[in-house]
Amino acid sequence: MFLFRIVSSCQCYVRFTARRRESKRSIHLTIFQYNQESSKWGSKKKHRDIRIGLNWLLKMPNSKTEEILAPLRAAVKEQGDVVRELKASGASEIDLKKAVAELKSRKKILEDKELALTPAAVTFDRARMEDLLKRRFFYDQSFAIYGGISGQYDFGPMGCALKANMLHAWRKFFVLEEQMLEVDCSILTPEPVLKASGHVDRFADLMVKDVVTGECFRLDHLIKATLEKIAADKKTTEEVRNECWDIIIKLDGLSKDELDAVLKRFNIKSPLTGNQLTEPIEFNLMFGTQIGPSGVIKGFLRPETAQGIFVNFKRLLEFNQGKLPFSAAQIGNAFRNEISPRAGLIRVREFTMAEIEHFCDPSDKRHPKFINVRNTEMLLYSACNQMDGKSAEIKTVGEAVDSGLIANETLGYFMARIQLFLLKIGIDPARLRFRQHMGNEMAHYACDCWDAECLTSYGWVECVGCADRSAYDLSQHSKATNVRLAAEKRLPVPKTVQVTEIQPNKGVLGKAFKADARVVIEHLANLSMNEISSLSKELDSEKEKTIELSGKSFNITPDMINVKTFEKTLHVEEFVPSVIEPSFGIGRIMYALFEHNFHCREGDEQRSFFSLPTVVAPLKCCIFPLSGNAEFQPFVKKLSIALTQVDVSHKVDDSAGSIGRRYTRNDEIAVPFGITVDFDSLNEPHSATLRERDSMGQLRIMLDELPSVVADLSNGKLSWSEAAQKYPKFEQQESTKNA
Amino acid sequence: MFLFRIVSSCQCYVRFTARRRESKRSIHLTIFQYNQESSKWGSKKKHRDIRIGLNWLLKMPNSKTEEILAPLRAAVKEQGDVVRELKASGASEIDLKKAVAELKSRKKILEDKELALTPAAVTFDRARMEDLLKRRFFYDQSFAIYGGISGQYDFGPMGCALKANMLHAWRKFFVLEEQMLEVDCSILTPEPVLKASGHVDRFADLMVKDVVTGECFRLDHLIKATLEKIAADKKTTEEVRNECWDIIIKLDGLSKDELDAVLKRFNIKSPLTGNQLTEPIEFNLMFGTQIGPSGVIKGFLRPETAQGIFVNFKRLLEFNQGKLPFSAAQIGNAFRNEISPRAGLIRVREFTMAEIEHFCDPSDKRHPKFINVRNTEMLLYSACNQMDGKSAEIKTVGEAVDSGLIANETLGYFMARIQLFLLKIGIDPARLRFRQHMGNEMAHYACDCWDAECLTSYGWVECVGCADRSAYDLSQHSKATNVRLAAEKRLPVPKTVQVTEIQPNKGVLGKAFKADARVVIEHLANLSMNEISSLSKELDSEKEKTIELSGKSFNITPDMINVKTFEKTLHVEEFVPSVIEPSFGIGRIMYALFEHNFHCREGDEQRSFFSLPTVVAPLKCCIFPLSGNAEFQPFVKKLSIALTQVDVSHKVDDSAGSIGRRYTRNDEIAVPFGITVDFDSLNEPHSATLRERDSMGQLRIMLDELPSVVADLSNGKLSWSEAAQKYPKFEQQESTKNA
Repeated sequence: MFLFRIVSSCQCYVRFTARRRESKRSIHLTIFQYNQESSKWGSKKKHRDIRIGLNWLLKMPNSKTEEILAPLRAAVKEQGDVVRELKASGASEIDLKKAVAELKSRKKILEDKELALTPAAVTFDRARMEDLLKRRFFYDQSFAIYGGISGQYDFGPMGCALKANMLHAWRKFFVLEEQMLEVDCSILTPEPVLKASGHVDRFADLMVKDVVTGECFRLDHLIKATLEKIAADKKTTEEVRNECWDIIIKLDGLSKDELDAVLKRFNIKSPLTGNQLTEPIEFNLMFGTQIGPSGVIKGFLRPETAQGIFVNFKRLLEFNQGKLPFSAAQIGNAFRNEISPRAGLIRVREFTMAEIEHFCDPSDKRHPKFINVRNTEMLLYSACNQMDGKSAEIKTVGEAVDSGLIANETLGYFMARIQLFLLKIGIDPARLRFRQHMGNEMAHYACDCWDAECLTSYGWVECVGCADRSAYDLSQHSKATNVRLAAEKRLPVPKTVQVTEIQPNKGVLGKAFKADARVVIEHLANLSMNEISSLSKELDSEKEKTIELSGKSFNITPDMINVKTFEKTLHVEEFVPSVIEPSFGIGRIMYALFEHNFHCREGDEQRSFFSLPTVVAPLKCCIFPLSGNAEFQPFVKKLSIALTQVDVSHKVDDSAGSIGRRYTRNDEIAVPFGITVDFDSLNEPHSATLRERDSMGQLRIMLDELPSVVADLSNGKLSWSEAAQKYPKFEQQESTKNA
Repeated sequence: MFLFRIVSSCQCYVRFTARRRESKRSIHLTIFQYNQESSKWGSKKKHRDIRIGLNWLLKMPNSKTEEILAPLRAAVKEQGDVVRELKASGASEIDLKKAVAELKSRKKILEDKELALTPAAVTFDRARMEDLLKRRFFYDQSFAIYGGISGQYDFGPMGCALKANMLHAWRKFFVLEEQMLEVDCSILTPEPVLKASGHVDRFADLMVKDVVTGECFRLDHLIKATLEKIAADKKTTEEVRNECWDIIIKLDGLSKDELDAVLKRFNIKSPLTGNQLTEPIEFNLMFGTQIGPSGVIKGFLRPETAQGIFVNFKRLLEFNQGKLPFSAAQIGNAFRNEISPRAGLIRVREFTMAEIEHFCDPSDKRHPKFINVRNTEMLLYSACNQMDGKSAEIKTVGEAVDSGLIANETLGYFMARIQLFLLKIGIDPARLRFRQHMGNEMAHYACDCWDAECLTSYGWVECVGCADRSAYDLSQHSKATNVRLAAEKRLPVPKTVQVTEIQPNKGVLGKAFKADARVVIEHLANLSMNEISSLSKELDSEKEKTIELSGKSFNITPDMINVKTFEKTLHVEEFVPSVIEPSFGIGRIMYALFEHNFHCREGDEQRSFFSLPTVVAPLKCCIFPLSGNAEFQPFVKKLSIALTQVDVSHKVDDSAGSIGRRYTRNDEIAVPFGITVDFDSLNEPHSATLRERDSMGQLRIMLDELPSVVADLSNGKLSWSEAAQKYPKFEQQESTKNA
C-alpha cells in the first residue's frame, strides 16, 4: 500500500487524496535538484555535483550553527504547538490543514538553513551515474525505438539480475526466515474489490486539460512551475512574489476549489500552447480495462499487491490451521497511471512491490523474536521531533518501543528487520532514516506508521512503508462481501453470554413467498441481535412488518419466525485481526542502491564503479584471459564450467582492450571479483589472479581452488580480508587505462 | 509467443487467426475428457478415473492390433500424400485447407482407435487431485469472496513456492548456465509495437453475442457444443448426424462466412436464453487501456513477453559488444482476454511465461554445445509421421539433426535442453513428446517448429514451443520504426562493391524549401541505391521530379543533389539475425507437474501425495515433535534455526493429531523430508528420525548432523539411497492414520 501514504492526514479519505499532497515533498526537495524529465534522462549538466547534506551525522551540534538555527527551531515548535492545540480542541479540518501547511513551511525554512550551514558530506554527479546506467543498459526507457513512453522502464541484463538478486535476498530474509505464507495473486482486479478498498472513489490526482489540444497537466505541478516562474521574474513585484511563494508552500493543503481560484487569479494557461485550460478534473490513477468479451465486467490493473492478500485471508488462515499470528507476503507488479511521471525509477507507471501483511491479535502485539533486534540502533525522526523543529535521533528499537515512541513490538520488530535488510543489500546507513507519520498524515485507522527513507539526490525518498493498519482492510472487504474475515482465539476462562436467535419457519415462508423465500430467509439469518429484538418487538405489537429486499416488499408475520433467547457458554472469541504492513518499493530501493554505491576512482573521474554488495551484484565474477593467446582458452573454459557447477553467476570477458580497460568495464557493472588467466597460469602448478572490485587488491590462487573460493566469497562464507590473509598478494601494478 | 501457435497454417496471417483453430485440439481431446468449467473446478464425478493411454510406450507393435489399424493408417497416408501433392503443385489456399481438414479427421479416427485398442497405462482421478489442490490452497480462483472471475487464479503458499522454485530452476538452468542476457520489460505496451508484431490486427477469436442479454460465446465452442448435442439426439437422422460430425471435424478450417452459414443452417440460438445471436464478430484478445491521462495513447497488456526483447535488440547487441550469437531471456506475465477460459490453469487470462530469444547468423546455425546433447533420446512426432499415419518415434537429437528432421543444431540443442529441464523438475518422460508443426501449421517465416507436449487428462497439452522464427520479428520492428535492427559480421575476404550515394546540396534545398528542407534531406538520405539511380535518371531526362512528403509536394531539380558512384571495399557484412525461440508456459507446465506427480498410497486412496522432485518441492522439510510434550520444544527450535542457516525451506508441524496423520498432511503438500523429534531424541547422543515422502523410509540420524544431511538431500548433493546406506534404518512402523 506503500507510496501514496507519503503524506496524508488524520482523515480516512486522506490516504487517497493525499496523493495530491506530495507537492510538499517536491518543495522540500528543491533544496536538492528536482528537474528531471523522465523522457530525457542522463547527460544533464544541471544534474552534476548535487550537494547531499549528511548533517544528521553531526551528533555534536556546532554552537555557532545552533545560534543561527535556534530562532528557526523555535518558530517550528511554536507552530507545532498550535497544531497540537487545534487537535486537542477538536478544531475543524480546514483550520487544522492550514495550521499544518504553515508548520510545514516553517520546517522547510529550517531544513534549508540546516543544509546551507552544513558542509556537504557527499557531492554526487547524477548525470555521470545516469549515463553509466544507460550506457551499460542497467535500465532504459521502454519502447525507445517507438519513441518511448514516459514512466516505463525496461531492465537490461544487469538491472534485471540486480532486481532478481534483490528479490531472492528479500524472499530468503523475510519469507523463508520468518516462514511467511507467500502468495501470487492476479493483477487484473474486478471493480468491486477496489471499490471496497477505496481506490475507485478516491485514488485520484487533480489535473487540467488544454481545451484545444487535450494535453493534460497535473494541477499541482503546473501551478508550482508557473508560480516559480512568476516569482523568478524580475518584473514581478515583491508583493506578488511573496504571494507566489506562500501558495507554493501551502499547495498541498489547498482544496480543489482553492486551486481553481489560483488558476484564475494568475490566469494560468497551457505552458505549451498558451491555450485555455479546463476546470480541475479528478483523474483516477488506476488503469482500467474490461475483463471478458462482453464489456460488462470492469476491471483495473491493481495499484498495489496488498488487496490480493486480504481477499485470500480466509484461505490463508485455514492454511495456517486457524492460528494467529502469521505473515503473508507477495512480490509482484502494480500499476499507476501517473499524470506526469518523472524522477526516473522513483515515479513510474509500472513497478514491482514486495508487501508483507502480518495478521495478529489486536490485543497482543508482542513479538517472540523482538528480543533478537532489541539493540538495533536506528535513526528515528519522530512526529514529535518534526513538530518541535528537532532533528532525527539515534535510538535502539528497544528504547523506542519501551518509551511508546514506536507503537508496539511487532511494528518495531519489522522496522528493525527492514533496516537490517536494506543495509545487507547495500543501502548506506548514513543515508537511511525512519520517519514517523505525523498524526495528521496518518489514515484514521492506522495506529502508527513509519517510512524507511533513503537520502538521494532527489532528497529523502520513501522506499519502505511500515504501518500498523489495525483491522481496516479486512473490515472493508467483510462489509462489501458479507463474508466474515475474522479469527478465533480461545478464551482464558469460558464466558457465558445471552444469545438471541431467529428460527425461520421455512414452510410458512415458502408458502408465502415462493421462489423469493430463499432471499427472505437469508436476510433473516443475517440480522444482528439488536435487529432481531426490534423485529420481534414490532411483530409482538403490530403483528406484521414489511421489509424491502432487492426492490420487492415482503410482509413478515409472527408465524413466520420463532425468536429464542438462551444462555450460551463460549470457549472461543471471534475477532478481526490487526494488520502490520511493511511494503517495499523495489524500484525505489534499487535507485537508492545505485546512488549509494556509485563511486569514481580517486584521481580518475572516468573510472566509475558500483560497490554493490556481493549478495545483490548482478554477476559475481568475470574471467579475463590476459590476451587473445589461444593457450589461455582451455583454462578459461574449465574455470567457467567449474564456476557454473558451484552456482557462481559469471561471464568471460575476452574482448579486445587492455586488461586495465576491461577491469574498468566490469567495475562499471559492479562485478565484485575478477579472475585473470595470465602467462604464469600456463605453468604448473596452475594459478591465476583474483581481483576485488572495491579495493582493487589482487591475490594469487591455485586454479583448482579458485571456483570454491569465489563461491565462498560470493555467498558470504568468506570475506575478502579473510581471503587476503590466506592467499599471497599479487603485487603487479594494475595496468592503467592507457596500457 | 507460445500458445497461439498450437495450430496454424502455411500463411503468415495464420499465426494469428490460428487461434480459432484450436477447436481441432479439443476435438482430438474428446477422447479423454474435456468438460471442465473454470468457475467450478474440483469434486466433479465425471472427472474421476480418466483413462490416459500411453500406447506410444509399446515399442513392439502388437500384430493383431496392427491388423486393425493398418487400413486406418493407410487412409491417413493417402490423404497425407494428397496434401503433399497439392502443396507441390501450388494449389489454392482453400483447396489446401480442405485437404488438411480431411487429413486431420482421418488422423483423429486413427488415434481414437489406437487408444481404444491399448490397455490404458494410467488411470487418473482428476477430481481427487483438484480437491487436494483447492483444499491445501496450491491455487484457487481469484477474488472468490467477490464471486470470482473465470480464467484467473491466485497461487497460495505452496503453489507460489512451487512456482518460485520452478522459475529459480529455470533461471539457473538456462540464464546462468548459458549466460543469457535476461531482461525485464514493461507489461503495458503502446499500440504501434503490437501493430508491427501483427497482434492488433490479427490476434482475435470469433464470437457471437446474445442480441438481448449481450452474453458472448466463442463461436467455435458454441457450434461444436450445439452440433454434438444434435448428433447425440436419438431423433436426429443419420444424414444430419454425419453432417454434424463432418462440420465438427472441419471446424478449424472454416472461414468466418462458412461458420456464419453453419449458424444459420442449424438455426443456432443462445444456449442460455434461446435468444437470437449476432453475426460472428472478431474479438481481439488483448486487454486494452489508456496510458497517461489524455486518453490519446492507446496501450495493451502484452499478450506475450517476446516483443520486449525484440524492441531492445539494439541495446542487447551493444551490451554483448556487437557479437552474435547470444540469447536473451525474459520471465514475466502476459495477458489474454479469453472469451471463455476453461481447463483450469491451461487456458487462463493472466499467466507467467519464460521466453528465450536466441539471435544467430542465419547462415550458421551450428551450436558449440550441441555435442553435449547429441545422444539425448527424445520422443519425436514428426510432421511426416503425422501425415503418414505413423506414431511418434524415439530418436537421439543427433540423429534427428543429421537426417534433417530437426532443421539445425541450435534448434536441436534447445529442444534437448527443454527436455532435460522438464525431466529435472518432474515431468514424466513417458508423458512427454515433441510434436513438429506440419508445414501447413507453420507461419511462413518459421523454418521449423516443435512443441514440447505433456500428456494430461486434458490430452496432449503444449507446454513449451520451440521455433526457428528466421528474421521475421526484427524485420517487422525495423520496418515500423525505420531503426535498423541488424548485426554485422566480418567477411572472410573483403568484398569490393559499387556504391551509389546521394549528396544533398543543403544550401539550395534550404533556400527552396525553408523549414521543410530537413524533411526532404532526410527523405533523400534514406533512398535505396535503386531509388537513387532512378531519381538520377529522371532528373537527367526530365530536369525535375516532384515528390510527396507528409502531404506536401516538393519539386526536386538537378542542382539540389549530387549523385556519386564509386567502389568501396567492405570488411563486414550487415545482416538481420535469425531468432530461435523456446517459449515456456509456466502455468501449463505446473499443471502437468501436478498430474504427473499425483499418487495415492497403495491400498489407501485417502492418502494422496505429490512426488514433486526436491528441486521444486514447495518446502524441503517439515519438523514434527512426536507430541505436545514441552521437552521436545528446544530441539525443534534448534533444528529450525539450523535449517534456516543452511537455507532449507521448512515448517514446523506441531499441530494436534497423530504423527501418521501429520505425515499424510505434509505428503499432500509434497514436503520430501520429515524430521521427527521423539522421546529417544531427549537422550544423549541426541538423534531424530528422517523420513522420505515417496518411499516412506525412515533413517535415524544424529541431531547435529541432520541439518546438513537435509541440505545435501535438498540441493541434490546426496540421494536418499546414498543416505540410506550411510545411516541406520528406523524400523518402527509408520503409525496408521487412526493411531
